[in-house]
Amino acid sequence: MSKIAYDLSKMRAVVFDIDGVLSPATVSLGENGIPCRMANLRDGYAMQRAIQTGTLDLCIISSADAPGLRERFRNLGVKDIYLNAGDKFEILKYWMERRGYLPEETAYVGDDIPDLSCMRYVGLPVAPSDAAPECRDAARYITKAAGGYGVARELLEQILKVRRVWNTETNKENA
Amino acid sequence: MSKIAYDLSKMRAVVFDIDGVLSPATVSLGENGIPCRMANLRDGYAMQRAIQTGTLDLCIISSADAPGLRERFRNLGVKDIYLNAGDKFEILKYWMERRGYLPEETAYVGDDIPDLSCMRYVGLPVAPSDAAPECRDAARYITKAAGGYGVARELLEQILKVRRVWNTETNKENA
Amino acid sequence: MSKIAYDLSKMRAVVFDIDGVLSPATVSLGENGIPCRMANLRDGYAMQRAIQTGTLDLCIISSADAPGLRERFRNLGVKDIYLNAGDKFEILKYWMERRGYLPEETAYVGDDIPDLSCMRYVGLPVAPSDAAPECRDAARYITKAAGGYGVARELLEQILKVRRVWNTETNKENA
Amino acid sequence: MSKIAYDLSKMRAVVFDIDGVLSPATVSLGENGIPCRMANLRDGYAMQRAIQTGTLDLCIISSADAPGLRERFRNLGVKDIYLNAGDKFEILKYWMERRGYLPEETAYVGDDIPDLSCMRYVGLPVAPSDAAPECRDAARYITKAAGGYGVARELLEQILKVRRVWNTETNKENA
Repeated sequence: MSKIAYDLSKMRAVVFDIDGVLSPATVSLGENGIPCRMANLRDGYAMQRAIQTGTLDLCIISSADAPGLRERFRNLGVKDIYLNAGDKFEILKYWMERRGYLPEETAYVGDDIPDLSCMRYVGLPVAPSDAAPECRDAARYITKAAGGYGVARELLEQILKVRRVWNTETNKENA
Repeated sequence: MSKIAYDLSKMRAVVFDIDGVLSPATVSLGENGIPCRMANLRDGYAMQRAIQTGTLDLCIISSADAPGLRERFRNLGVKDIYLNAGDKFEILKYWMERRGYLPEETAYVGDDIPDLSCMRYVGLPVAPSDAAPECRDAARYITKAAGGYGVARELLEQILKVRRVWNTETNKENA
Repeated sequence: MSKIAYDLSKMRAVVFDIDGVLSPATVSLGENGIPCRMANLRDGYAMQRAIQTGTLDLCIISSADAPGLRERFRNLGVKDIYLNAGDKFEILKYWMERRGYLPEETAYVGDDIPDLSCMRYVGLPVAPSDAAPECRDAARYITKAAGGYGVARELLEQILKVRRVWNTETNKENA
Repeated sequence: MSKIAYDLSKMRAVVFDIDGVLSPATVSLGENGIPCRMANLRDGYAMQRAIQTGTLDLCIISSADAPGLRERFRNLGVKDIYLNAGDKFEILKYWMERRGYLPEETAYVGDDIPDLSCMRYVGLPVAPSDAAPECRDAARYITKAAGGYGVARELLEQILKVRRVWNTETNKENA
């Protein structure tokens, strides 16, 4: 995990794509042909911690829609979950405006072409190590982790440390 | 991803095997003993884009047949899906003739012995990095990706770039 | 597998976290959004052997709760299985006291921040190779295996060998 | 794939364990806590070919028992499938005697301690690259493939080539 070259103290919001970011790019197909997404549980811990400490507002924008996806992220405390998204960039702008977040206060993590407009709009665009080359080019930070294998953890942990809420001594939440 | 040594400007059709190509060679078994296939979602993006831009005709020929397989590829826009295929070569020839595609305009991606006749017939035979040695020998291009982990993406992206429809600026499809 | 720098002859109990320890950190999501855990079958063999020979008392403490988890570990012979655990450290102390195990006779295997208090309490804290850096720092032994890929096997095998119950000649249990 | 140092022309039977051999050591848990096995489809092709050409008699002996397992291997043409096996060695000896196979005509592929007696009995004991060290020590051939990722293919292909039934020109079976 290398250090992110960005002033993380001003971050207020982090927006995630699902496929290739919070879930690996290759997943099983359900009986109905709908890809069955995966989740990294250490990502989950960091997402919960970012929300419970009130440090960051998290948002999910994905063209995916599958049984269990909404439940998973709602259980972690994520309030704004846009699934089955058509134009991600329109949703991103709408959400940031409604919440009052400036681009320089926002990170967006994406792995493929439809994420590019979003990545170019925010102050801190992030891509997993196995993202499409176009996304890695557009990213200010490329995680060491591949999509689905700890991408959110790597980003959130660095922000939470800068904000001094990654206190491992008094922390008794679930693992 | 190395460059394909073939005149991609003349490609009109790409034919895919499923097991070991669009899905990894090792997959979970369902309760009925039927292998539960997987899919790479960045493959899916490129397949959709090839079809929606009218650049390529895609076809799937597989001896596999499992719940969800047909739905998955139909959702991506693939029209010709031959599952439970006995003799793949007969199906390939029938399909190419019906559609009017010449061997030099056609790519076939396969990973195992039953794909060899098809691979030897088309102008651009392609094999995943972990294909059977016989298929790698017969291939004109071996993808960097292993079967199920981005094989279709690697091939289609190169064709779409040569055809100038991999425009990342105005592209707002789903990711 | 490197040698554990600890007097294993005095070990009486081993306590395991599930996610990132007995199951990989990245797993599939069920239809209800509950992560579907995995298991390593060579871990299972060593756990069965530790119990059947009466060599070690095994305990599981996890914030996870999913269908099949309790059945899996009960089938292996584990008697004390605390799922849906809130404060792991309280449960650990309660269990050790009730069973009469001293910290120096106990190992705890954990991979993330909520495991740290437990790891600091026991004599032999263990972390998988891909655990959070804080856990690897707190560990006296870091397994060669990543979480879910043989962590328990690597630890238990070394203890059972020191106790001379890893007898491969007369052993006819299930594999 | 290195060459097997054994006279493969005399092989008549190959016996497989499932977990860690035909299926990876780490697999998903079903809702009932029963591990959900996986299969490699290029293994399947070679198993089918060994049977259909009448070259080898294949047998499966596993302590595993899960929905779909028997169906999978029966679909490939395997006739003798011993699941839920207690003492594998007793079953192996019974099967070989009934079928009239000598140890030097038989291969056994195993990955863990309960396979050791079987491995020591046959002429050609084989272990996957990630098998328990005891099994790798007992093996005459260690596959390049890890358990579940092409172990059977690597062994059977070499035998079928020596027997000249790996004819890739006239072969039109399913892939």
